Amino acid sequence: MGSKLWGGRFVGDTDPIMEMFNASIAYDKRMWDADIRGSKAYVKALEKAELVTTEEMENILHGMDQIHDEWSKGVFEVKPGDEDIHTANERRLKELIGEPAGKLHTGRSRNDQVVTDMRLWLRDAISTLKRNALQLITTMVERAAVEMDVLFPGYTHMQRAQPIRWSHWLLSHAVALSRDLERLHEIRRRVNVLPLGRYTHADTHTAMTELAFDDISINSMDATGQRDFVAEFLFWASLCLTHLSKMAEDLMLYSTKEFSFLVLSDAYSTGSSLMPQKKNADSLELIRSKAGRVFGRCAGFLMTLKGLPSTYNKDLQVGGGGGGGGGVCVCIFFFLCQINRGVMEAALSPDMLATDLAYYLVRKGVPFREAHGISGKAVFLAESKSILLNQLTVEELRTASPLFSSDVSAVWDYSSSVEQYSAPGGTAKSSVAAQVEHLRTWLKKQAW
Amino acid sequence: MGSKLWGGRFVGDTDPIMEMFNASIAYDKRMWDADIRGSKAYVKALEKAELVTTEEMENILHGMDQIHDEWSKGVFEVKPGDEDIHTANERRLKELIGEPAGKLHTGRSRNDQVVTDMRLWLRDAISTLKRNALQLITTMVERAAVEMDVLFPGYTHMQRAQPIRWSHWLLSHAVALSRDLERLHEIRRRVNVLPLGRYTHADTHTAMTELAFDDISINSMDATGQRDFVAEFLFWASLCLTHLSKMAEDLMLYSTKEFSFLVLSDAYSTGSSLMPQKKNADSLELIRSKAGRVFGRCAGFLMTLKGLPSTYNKDLQVGGGGGGGGGVCVCIFFFLCQINRGVMEAALSPDMLATDLAYYLVRKGVPFREAHGISGKAVFLAESKSILLNQLTVEELRTASPLFSSDVSAVWDYSSSVEQYSAPGGTAKSSVAAQVEHLRTWLKKQAW
Amino acid sequence: MGSKLWGGRFVGDTDPIMEMFNASIAYDKRMWDADIRGSKAYVKALEKAELVTTEEMENILHGMDQIHDEWSKGVFEVKPGDEDIHTANERRLKELIGEPAGKLHTGRSRNDQVVTDMRLWLRDAISTLKRNALQLITTMVERAAVEMDVLFPGYTHMQRAQPIRWSHWLLSHAVALSRDLERLHEIRRRVNVLPLGRYTHADTHTAMTELAFDDISINSMDATGQRDFVAEFLFWASLCLTHLSKMAEDLMLYSTKEFSFLVLSDAYSTGSSLMPQKKNADSLELIRSKAGRVFGRCAGFLMTLKGLPSTYNKDLQVGGGGGGGGGVCVCIFFFLCQINRGVMEAALSPDMLATDLAYYLVRKGVPFREAHGISGKAVFLAESKSILLNQLTVEELRTASPLFSSDVSAVWDYSSSVEQYSAPGGTAKSSVAAQVEHLRTWLKKQAW
Amino acid sequence: MGSKLWGGRFVGDTDPIMEMFNASIAYDKRMWDADIRGSKAYVKALEKAELVTTEEMENILHGMDQIHDEWSKGVFEVKPGDEDIHTANERRLKELIGEPAGKLHTGRSRNDQVVTDMRLWLRDAISTLKRNALQLITTMVERAAVEMDVLFPGYTHMQRAQPIRWSHWLLSHAVALSRDLERLHEIRRRVNVLPLGRYTHADTHTAMTELAFDDISINSMDATGQRDFVAEFLFWASLCLTHLSKMAEDLMLYSTKEFSFLVLSDAYSTGSSLMPQKKNADSLELIRSKAGRVFGRCAGFLMTLKGLPSTYNKDLQVGGGGGGGGGVCVCIFFFLCQINRGVMEAALSPDMLATDLAYYLVRKGVPFREAHGISGKAVFLAESKSILLNQLTVEELRTASPLFSSDVSAVWDYSSSVEQYSAPGGTAKSSVAAQVEHLRTWLKKQAW
Repeated sequence: MGSKLWGGRFVGDTDPIMEMFNASIAYDKRMWDADIRGSKAYVKALEKAELVTTEEMENILHGMDQIHDEWSKGVFEVKPGDEDIHTANERRLKELIGEPAGKLHTGRSRNDQVVTDMRLWLRDAISTLKRNALQLITTMVERAAVEMDVLFPGYTHMQRAQPIRWSHWLLSHAVALSRDLERLHEIRRRVNVLPLGRYTHADTHTAMTELAFDDISINSMDATGQRDFVAEFLFWASLCLTHLSKMAEDLMLYSTKEFSFLVLSDAYSTGSSLMPQKKNADSLELIRSKAGRVFGRCAGFLMTLKGLPSTYNKDLQVGGGGGGGGGVCVCIFFFLCQINRGVMEAALSPDMLATDLAYYLVRKGVPFREAHGISGKAVFLAESKSILLNQLTVEELRTASPLFSSDVSAVWDYSSSVEQYSAPGGTAKSSVAAQVEHLRTWLKKQAW
Repeated sequence: MGSKLWGGRFVGDTDPIMEMFNASIAYDKRMWDADIRGSKAYVKALEKAELVTTEEMENILHGMDQIHDEWSKGVFEVKPGDEDIHTANERRLKELIGEPAGKLHTGRSRNDQVVTDMRLWLRDAISTLKRNALQLITTMVERAAVEMDVLFPGYTHMQRAQPIRWSHWLLSHAVALSRDLERLHEIRRRVNVLPLGRYTHADTHTAMTELAFDDISINSMDATGQRDFVAEFLFWASLCLTHLSKMAEDLMLYSTKEFSFLVLSDAYSTGSSLMPQKKNADSLELIRSKAGRVFGRCAGFLMTLKGLPSTYNKDLQVGGGGGGGGGVCVCIFFFLCQINRGVMEAALSPDMLATDLAYYLVRKGVPFREAHGISGKAVFLAESKSILLNQLTVEELRTASPLFSSDVSAVWDYSSSVEQYSAPGGTAKSSVAAQVEHLRTWLKKQAW
Repeated sequence: MGSKLWGGRFVGDTDPIMEMFNASIAYDKRMWDADIRGSKAYVKALEKAELVTTEEMENILHGMDQIHDEWSKGVFEVKPGDEDIHTANERRLKELIGEPAGKLHTGRSRNDQVVTDMRLWLRDAISTLKRNALQLITTMVERAAVEMDVLFPGYTHMQRAQPIRWSHWLLSHAVALSRDLERLHEIRRRVNVLPLGRYTHADTHTAMTELAFDDISINSMDATGQRDFVAEFLFWASLCLTHLSKMAEDLMLYSTKEFSFLVLSDAYSTGSSLMPQKKNADSLELIRSKAGRVFGRCAGFLMTLKGLPSTYNKDLQVGGGGGGGGGVCVCIFFFLCQINRGVMEAALSPDMLATDLAYYLVRKGVPFREAHGISGKAVFLAESKSILLNQLTVEELRTASPLFSSDVSAVWDYSSSVEQYSAPGGTAKSSVAAQVEHLRTWLKKQAW
Repeated sequence: MGSKLWGGRFVGDTDPIMEMFNASIAYDKRMWDADIRGSKAYVKALEKAELVTTEEMENILHGMDQIHDEWSKGVFEVKPGDEDIHTANERRLKELIGEPAGKLHTGRSRNDQVVTDMRLWLRDAISTLKRNALQLITTMVERAAVEMDVLFPGYTHMQRAQPIRWSHWLLSHAVALSRDLERLHEIRRRVNVLPLGRYTHADTHTAMTELAFDDISINSMDATGQRDFVAEFLFWASLCLTHLSKMAEDLMLYSTKEFSFLVLSDAYSTGSSLMPQKKNADSLELIRSKAGRVFGRCAGFLMTLKGLPSTYNKDLQVGGGGGGGGGVCVCIFFFLCQINRGVMEAALSPDMLATDLAYYLVRKGVPFREAHGISGKAVFLAESKSILLNQLTVEELRTASPLFSSDVSAVWDYSSSVEQYSAPGGTAKSSVAAQVEHLRTWLKKQAW
């Protein structure tokens, strides 16, 4: 009992099941590096405030470096009494340097420590995610620049809608990811704050600068009892993965035998243990599923927070997670597929120009709603004759509206259909090129 | 069938169950005002691009004003064929001004329209929420300024921990809400963007300035197919309500008979239909429960998004909600309770100074860990003698450590206990006053 | 204030915002019928226990019938003070019959009443759902019986796997729904219990039989404070809708232009307000999205329950919902589509027989793992020669294994491929017919 | 590549990141025992169907036993290529017995195998949970029998309501748990089904009886593609933990200094690393938080399922979990606390008899609603005089109603108040004793 950080007033032994139940070392040990960095900064802040001597500080710093070494080399030994990473590191420090170890946590509770560790750890995770996401967006934008001339069907409701550029599709996903990065940047600002418990007598400015925090918390109860930054991050990851799940869904669809727009690279596919001919887009399916799993953590975390009273409650013990895998998710998309330009373009069909047919009439003065109706009738006429929409003769079209004349033939061109949408964000080559430029400029600014 | 906006190519009738199932008018009609504002701006943009004549524009604007009038007066009649608010308003416009109504939606699909309406509607809801939240924070800060000298027990794990100022508690919640407002501000920026479908030929700059949007979307597929701003907002509301649920939980606890720190005002309490003596904190319970309900919407919405392919799918039909009630939630807290200063201060007890007792030893050179153990022994000693911690004689204390001497009596003072935490965010009067000033300055800047 | 059911001890007025916030009438009024049935049974139980006279009972029953009439005809007027459906009905009863109305709730709190109403209401909703679901399963089973001979590709990972019967696909969904119904039956048993608050002096047996409840609750605190049956039902609806979302996803995929296995009936499709040629599977998309929305309610409800203390708390005010729409969801599938048998069968290709090719070798003594590898090599050989798998000559096959001989040609038959899986649950005609029989028998037993 | 179970047709190497991303061995290895049991049963079924010789079977069984041995002793070595537990065990089998290992999975895909393993594993977890839950219920029931005479305040809305027996409180939680066990029993029936993929040629009856399954799946697509039993179980665990969170919330409240009804045993409490006097109910807080975390898994799992097409998709890779910890949760409650009978009874106060005061008037012919109002006035009168309700003189009571007379003194007795509720489920001694008997009988029947 004596080895617990809190054992003084307790008489009965703790039930071993309770010890097991209470321990968090299994998942918080991944914060070993953050914990050591935090303690090193804290002892410097104590020294500055003359709460430890320079010699004691040197001893503690030296001991901490040794512990760091042990973790790096994978030889740090977690012992039975080590409830959490903080206890483990402090226990080891005492073994290494003896008594002065007990001074390390003057005015610093474990709750202060855990929330500092989490912030440091999450800040690192955010940096990794940012780097990977920027690389992915860059890949998408440059690919969009190169494959600008490939047309294929735009879909709504999984039904062919109108011809679009393949690059337009690529950029629609790149834009969503760029918004994710903006959100991540905002979250980082709220993560990168030194949380001060109220007991602090140490020099807080030293602690802040040593750990490269941007700011110090305003209220000590809020500082140790809030986990907003975790909740925010988990939701961020959920929404970002929802975007990736959307892209994955499109790619899976496009790589079915029936669509055949894409061939997935062998490097990101797997086979079947039963059917020798199968090539499965497992990587995409796993990404799609991660949207569910990570949101599950977010949901679980918010449900845990709901209705808790103020300050620290043990419910907050678990919090992190969900970050690591995301980096990999993002990587997977890098060199995922090759497109079948021929198949994509062959999938375009004249009925996808029915809206253009309506606009032909709008240009001749017909209100859009009416023109839409006339074009619909032409579609029905072609379907009932089992011919393509552009195979209707001018005479046949005239049964729907007398305004059709021979110049209607100009409608049946996929390229000019795409080109007519030249407003910002449109599918015209100029619009798509402008999107590429916009994102290139944006990418250059992402130096945070 | 002819009255549907899309009926041209359809032969069979729609099953009436399907019509009912498909309709969204029941919940999207609350966007009537946003829908009208959006259409008025759009027709101006069409006129600028010479797609409608000035006369047609005037007609349409005039018709729209009349429709606005009908909605305001509660006399607008939703008819059976009105699938959604857009169809309803367009149907009515045609009745009022005839043919030119058909020109209103040139190059504008319902998906463009719905997402514009949602953004306008949500921008308004955000303004209301912001106003209410600022008022609440102001109330809390000013109350903290006034009630600065009231001490009461700080709790962790629902157990008495150390003495704190009541104002420190108030500010811990105010700080959390100020973070919520910062997040809301960030979300507003992403909400306030004109979403352009790619079919647009209208003058987009006119549309943007007419509707006071800050920006225009970058990619048309993303513009109409993404609902990030809804998901973000729903999560925002969930997290904000989690904060309110925490404050509500504290207040409920403090207003139990057993704590009796607070008396809830009759105006926000209700009685029991069975037990005449009851006074229930229904308002607080409802707020606590809203955290669950609103998060349910967030969860449902994200689950709906998961795995959807690109662009518009009917799954996106529902989205909004969750905003209105929040405003009321916030109001409820305004004049909720009166504090029982006497009871609060009487709840302080000497064992809450056990940490101070440890610091007494730290000041005499004992490492904190060891001092903590000694203080714990003193607590146990007092408990086993059934006396209060400050009733132990110096001799008794010395059985735990020879370093205790008569100056230990200075420890037993709640005020000086609170005062010793004078670091930023601490409980000393100077620290709490600084928090008040910090928030007052912050409040002045919230002019967005 | 006097009109509140609980106003006696209150002095200050309730804030009007609080009244609005506290009221539940907007959503609990749909329980009007259950509320009246419950009160009628209760007054009979009071009379049996001689707590009201027979004459008073007759008066109350008569008044209740009148109120029922008003609700049925849509003329019942909800007044400002009517917080909830119980208050509304009791207020109206007093207007109609005067003083004796006050005796109706002797020993019965609103919490008792609300939980009884919810149970009655949910029991009705379950009956509707059951009826609709049985009809859907019947349709699926009979369709499976009729379309037994249609083969098409089975998919895993959205990639063509092996040939199966279309009926096998239909039955896979029917079996899942039959499990849903078994679960619903179990839930109904737990719903159909009379919840007794402890204040009851009425004759409980009378109340139970009048309301056709199967059982009486065991403990009064549990009876009024638990909402397990609501949580269970919401999860049931979520899981059932997840099944429907899976079926919807398959159908949407099969009805894309690219797959073209199915043609959706016009009656359950809608068009585009912009693109005249579109025919969208809105009904299927809405069903898919309902899985998200209903689960959102389940999540919100469980989050609301989490951490609540015992007995009634106002958090429980909201609970129901999610049932009504489900019935419609189920209906939608009835006559949804026609299959394109030709396209389905044309989608079968020889590489889908690669597993059969491996079994050919297994039958010649090769361990399965090795046979799988050899067949994989054959697939690769055909791919690199750009020919179909069944176009490889025996000589070419022998480069992969010397065991191939001319009898390999028997492998290339889709029908016999399907027929070889004759174990229970397999794709052989006999197996599928047995599934049909199994479900027909099961359907006959569903008389609860 | 050759060592993958599916490598035949693949040319390019798999990206190492993809291998890592795809692997599930880290979490599915806990199913090692289930995997071995499943394979042993399967090889017997193959032998029965003459697909392997008796000698091959013996070899495989022997090899499997050796592998079992290695896992038990903790010496089984997972190698880099081992994607999942099935691959690991099969790889090891081949090392041990050579070629015949390749015959083990004739007609059995990994998807068949994984779903069988999950069912076996979950069946075991359910048994453990059942055992622990029955023990907990037994403890609660017997404690209720012993502590039957202790009265304390019943609460609604966290406000004192009416006197109840402590045993009544205990049984309210026991009853909820007994419902959980009934649900668990129903789920077990759906878990304990042999899932047959359609490729099976083995003797299915042998497989079923060897593994003690109760039934065989009806349709092979459903058998391998559905995870209902996992979703059901996760929701079950969520709801059960919600019940435990409710009990934990009550106990935390009752063990605050302010309530002091309970003293938590040291064995299930922990201290503070900062404050020597603290004794925290960490065990209860962790249980409360588990309700959130486990529901998070349920939410994540359902979100993963939503919108998936039929049959196996890699999204289903993860599924289990959440079971193990629950067993421990349940244990924690066993010997958790001692009650302070004196404090509990001292917490009863006359205003909690206000309902009884109303019934006093009801017995004199006043309609309940009116009596409630009169009693409320008496409460207000006492409050404004700052005296207790039972300190009002008969004269003072008569200002509220002339029906009060000296026999009102009989109302002020907590025991007779509790005794008057003698209906089923009430608080009278006879009712509570009947609940105890009911649960004892129920417990005896739980032999599944």
